Amino acid sequence: MIYFNCDYNEGAHPHILQKLSETNLEQTPGYGEDAYCKEAADLIRTLCHCPDAAVHFLVGGTQANLTVISSALRPYQGVLCADTGHIHLHETGAVEATGHKVLSLPSVNGKISARQIQMAYYDQANNDAFEHIVQPKMVYLSSPSELGTLYSRKELEEIHNVCRECGLYLFLDGARLSYGLAAEENDLALADLASFCDVFYMGGTKCGALFGEAVVIINQELQKDFRYMIKQKGGMLAKGRLLGIQFVELLKSNMELYLSLAKHADRLADQIRYALTQKGYPYLVETTANQIFVILPDKAIAALTQNFSVTYQCRVDDSHSAIRICTSWATRTEDVDSLIHTINTLPD
Amino acid sequence: MIYFNCDYNEGAHPHILQKLSETNLEQTPGYGEDAYCKEAADLIRTLCHCPDAAVHFLVGGTQANLTVISSALRPYQGVLCADTGHIHLHETGAVEATGHKVLSLPSVNGKISARQIQMAYYDQANNDAFEHIVQPKMVYLSSPSELGTLYSRKELEEIHNVCRECGLYLFLDGARLSYGLAAEENDLALADLASFCDVFYMGGTKCGALFGEAVVIINQELQKDFRYMIKQKGGMLAKGRLLGIQFVELLKSNMELYLSLAKHADRLADQIRYALTQKGYPYLVETTANQIFVILPDKAIAALTQNFSVTYQCRVDDSHSAIRICTSWATRTEDVDSLIHTINTLPD
Amino acid sequence: MIYFNCDYNEGAHPHILQKLSETNLEQTPGYGEDAYCKEAADLIRTLCHCPDAAVHFLVGGTQANLTVISSALRPYQGVLCADTGHIHLHETGAVEATGHKVLSLPSVNGKISARQIQMAYYDQANNDAFEHIVQPKMVYLSSPSELGTLYSRKELEEIHNVCRECGLYLFLDGARLSYGLAAEENDLALADLASFCDVFYMGGTKCGALFGEAVVIINQELQKDFRYMIKQKGGMLAKGRLLGIQFVELLKSNMELYLSLAKHADRLADQIRYALTQKGYPYLVETTANQIFVILPDKAIAALTQNFSVTYQCRVDDSHSAIRICTSWATRTEDVDSLIHTINTLPD
Amino acid sequence: MIYFNCDYNEGAHPHILQKLSETNLEQTPGYGEDAYCKEAADLIRTLCHCPDAAVHFLVGGTQANLTVISSALRPYQGVLCADTGHIHLHETGAVEATGHKVLSLPSVNGKISARQIQMAYYDQANNDAFEHIVQPKMVYLSSPSELGTLYSRKELEEIHNVCRECGLYLFLDGARLSYGLAAEENDLALADLASFCDVFYMGGTKCGALFGEAVVIINQELQKDFRYMIKQKGGMLAKGRLLGIQFVELLKSNMELYLSLAKHADRLADQIRYALTQKGYPYLVETTANQIFVILPDKAIAALTQNFSVTYQCRVDDSHSAIRICTSWATRTEDVDSLIHTINTLPD
Repeated sequence: MIYFNCDYNEGAHPHILQKLSETNLEQTPGYGEDAYCKEAADLIRTLCHCPDAAVHFLVGGTQANLTVISSALRPYQGVLCADTGHIHLHETGAVEATGHKVLSLPSVNGKISARQIQMAYYDQANNDAFEHIVQPKMVYLSSPSELGTLYSRKELEEIHNVCRECGLYLFLDGARLSYGLAAEENDLALADLASFCDVFYMGGTKCGALFGEAVVIINQELQKDFRYMIKQKGGMLAKGRLLGIQFVELLKSNMELYLSLAKHADRLADQIRYALTQKGYPYLVETTANQIFVILPDKAIAALTQNFSVTYQCRVDDSHSAIRICTSWATRTEDVDSLIHTINTLPD
Repeated sequence: MIYFNCDYNEGAHPHILQKLSETNLEQTPGYGEDAYCKEAADLIRTLCHCPDAAVHFLVGGTQANLTVISSALRPYQGVLCADTGHIHLHETGAVEATGHKVLSLPSVNGKISARQIQMAYYDQANNDAFEHIVQPKMVYLSSPSELGTLYSRKELEEIHNVCRECGLYLFLDGARLSYGLAAEENDLALADLASFCDVFYMGGTKCGALFGEAVVIINQELQKDFRYMIKQKGGMLAKGRLLGIQFVELLKSNMELYLSLAKHADRLADQIRYALTQKGYPYLVETTANQIFVILPDKAIAALTQNFSVTYQCRVDDSHSAIRICTSWATRTEDVDSLIHTINTLPD
Repeated sequence: MIYFNCDYNEGAHPHILQKLSETNLEQTPGYGEDAYCKEAADLIRTLCHCPDAAVHFLVGGTQANLTVISSALRPYQGVLCADTGHIHLHETGAVEATGHKVLSLPSVNGKISARQIQMAYYDQANNDAFEHIVQPKMVYLSSPSELGTLYSRKELEEIHNVCRECGLYLFLDGARLSYGLAAEENDLALADLASFCDVFYMGGTKCGALFGEAVVIINQELQKDFRYMIKQKGGMLAKGRLLGIQFVELLKSNMELYLSLAKHADRLADQIRYALTQKGYPYLVETTANQIFVILPDKAIAALTQNFSVTYQCRVDDSHSAIRICTSWATRTEDVDSLIHTINTLPD
Repeated sequence: MIYFNCDYNEGAHPHILQKLSETNLEQTPGYGEDAYCKEAADLIRTLCHCPDAAVHFLVGGTQANLTVISSALRPYQGVLCADTGHIHLHETGAVEATGHKVLSLPSVNGKISARQIQMAYYDQANNDAFEHIVQPKMVYLSSPSELGTLYSRKELEEIHNVCRECGLYLFLDGARLSYGLAAEENDLALADLASFCDVFYMGGTKCGALFGEAVVIINQELQKDFRYMIKQKGGMLAKGRLLGIQFVELLKSNMELYLSLAKHADRLADQIRYALTQKGYPYLVETTANQIFVILPDKAIAALTQNFSVTYQCRVDDSHSAIRICTSWATRTEDVDSLIHTINTLPD
């Protein structure tokens, strides 16, 4: 079985393992107060053109989401997000477990618009019963989204502007950030993210590291005492340097490894997309990064999944379903060739 | 200004105040462990044909909702409810503040169906990623609903059956229960509620009392240590007898006062509905209890609200909006006459 | 059985009931936005010499405590209090249920000192592992305390000064405030409380009302959006005027009723203390307000409790225990006479 | 600077890194559902003689503590622990943040007794106000404790018996478990832990792994849906196999690596203790595992810490303080020799 079901089936890029081995017996302070974490944070501040950003390294995405959101909000405040948002659907109510309501908005292809956010805000702010309604205070976006789509620079800027107008914090979940940055369609630089968002994170887990998400807090209001939050929520890694070391490897030399790994995955996804398109299969969602959401006849899916593991997404009609095919930094060219070969021979 | 905007503008029925005065200087134990609370609980057990029910008296509905729900659920479990549900829209995230997600379902006129509940359950139970998804464990209904509609005996029985099938607790918010029981359309007896629900409450605040909701826990799994929950959530009234005394007055003699007050309100609402219908106004929702959701030309609303306070519900089109008109146990016949007179003369 | 076990065995002072009856059928807005709540809040602002104070009326003390504390603190912050504090021992973990640690300090007779608070603060602030330790941010005092003692003006001022130095909020639980204000030993005026505390509340439940605690927020940092907190925690009374009406009655004419009821209770407690002292019984704690903590031979307790209900406090030695005797606004002179008669004849 | 301040200054034992490298490009399912986690869990079940135990792998200790405790308790229940307990003092209120009170008991050298637990239980259970008091439901022990001491087999058995008697769950934090198992004084086998505790964990982070704690749930009542809890609290590692691989390496061949690493540390600590004792320094606490709590003249501490990093523990008198010296699996013999040499030459 060859896995195209997700982008975290393997360990880490060998350079990263190598570096972990080299530094293994060094003695460093714990809890992220070591020189590697400092170096990685400095790299990120430079890449973001934001010398005052606070940077923290957490092990995983759910931990990052719940820590950022519960740190930013007062108890009666909630977070707006797409109804496909990871925090809404796939984190077992982690945000609610910290006491905050996730205020879901109908999404189009995994995204929400500035206009929707604005309306949601004014619906509450102008409602006579406002104290009886959760106060929206933060917007959660993911880019690439859970459906593989990207926010454009223009969309993100509009959302940024609405957030400023309404006093909302903008938080972007970049668990797959590198795949977005490397996508053909992308017009957002990392520094744009830093100027549009109050807080965002750069994913490591899905992008070449063993684990790790780099939380970048731009807005100084949100920086205070964040380490208390990390510790309280169980997210402070004793040997924090493991995170620092990995992000230094990924991000040094202007994100050389981070982006090259993502380009690898995106290019292979393009090849798969080409084969699927040639075959005439329609897409559930049009995407350009490392996730493909394609609609296949059930028979074709049955044939495909004899040798390839993919993710079942949803039923489309009586005889068709959508699946997700995912490439990653670790995907082997020969496995893609093999997948394409199989696609070309799928039954109708 | 005459208020038809809600059903809690006045104090309590005079019999209740009278009884509070008569018993005022009696010395009783605190925290609901007095003879009046016991008497009221016994009355309810008898009315429900359920000698093993646990009965607790809380001051308000939000308190009742959050205490019942957080007591019944494990941390990763959530409560299914209509997207119009009070716990979803009008309690400032009180349920989420106890750590639980409200899982909203699209509603029709304030109600959800057995089929929707069943599908929501199996969507999670059959999902490969089930541990990443909040586990539905309770269903929250309100009857009368936030849009004034009632669940029929058949609907409630179907929901009950699905809940049994799926291992879900059924919880009914009866903040306006008496108005439902007294409605023409109603075919549910109190004992039906007790046999279909795991837990429900009988509203006092909106139905003749100064305040108070009687929580009736049928399912013995949910009874254990409920008083700890009440105390922890701040809902244990020091002079608990105030609740007991009020519910004894409302419910004694086979709910005589409780039902007669509701009939009064429902009958007056019927008169108002008759006038609105005669005038040709359409309804946002068809209802039979004490709440009326009618669509009026904006001009007519402007004229009406010069002397009458109603609740603005929503805009319907460029020149029409829906309003809520509410009667209560305290509504005066002459005020209804005056309202009807005004309706009859509203501009088109 | 005559009850001296607590100060909330009866209903309300007749003037209060009378006023509730007189206003019963008035139509007012709900949720504390009526004219009576406004009037009561204005009275309190005037009494406190604090025109900018925010005043909110809640039904009970646990609700007041958990709402104030969870509103003031960030998630990783805790509240310092005496190890005898009500929030630490007698509220079923209500504060922890909102996510905050209660940081208890050893108390002397129910009180803590400025010095203890200062040390607790610097222990955390100067600790290398500070991010691993709950950050103290609020001090909770009760006066009269759970052991009946009062903070003097000087003690409170010192605590206030330490709180300013350390950036701690000072919160005083005044569930029995009137009994303190009326005590012989007392040298604190209400306006002193307002100038020393960031937030405090004036108890109604134990001091003549059916229920109700008036939360007075002096510090403007703590005022924002407090009504959201009240609603979310289930503490927003639908018929909020019931609270406003009661506090107007208690507090009008310079707290005439509030203080006269407390003086009544304190004077009767003085009479009982005199009898106990004459009889040679030692005290567990020396007090001057309405609570008496006296040590009696077990035999004497057995004799006393044949006709009088008191609260068992703790065992002192093999043959002696401490009990609490409580008077209240409703205590009858003849019952005190009868109690004193019994005390005089207790066996050794 | 040579670090003796804690036992997590280095990475992992080289065998573990080696194995992570070897398996790096294998494709496995995520979230701990891979073959390595299964293998490690099977090893633990065998070592514990407990084929029905549930085993879960979490990244860190605070995460393990908060997840286990919040999974086991109902909202109004609390956890008894020593006042030196890690959950009480050094986790930023992580347990309280899940809503539960930590009920601290005075400890002797980091330990509590069966008798204390029994009394704490009956204090609540027999108290008339029991519903106003947090219900103790779990006991948290750490062994080795935060002061380096160990529970004996007899002590643990007594605590187990009291827990059974009182219906309390027994939870043992084994963050430093291997150092305890390898200590000279130890008379507890792993299988004893499994038979005495309802749940415990075996530390990896401090005992040779990069990170990781193996939570072993013996009591089947506590097993249900634990993975939901892990996910919700942010503790589910995407590449769960990293945990499985490490624990297989540590625990295979009857815990060969796990115990040999601990013996190494304990033996070196013995050498340091010998030097300190020879020098005549008294101990704050007598210990036999890898932590040493010794009292030194402040001058000696100043001299020592020029080249060696240790942890300041507390002031003892005007001229003496206690420090903690810690060895670990990674401590080098030559560094211990150097430390001993320095100890031998410390000023008085």
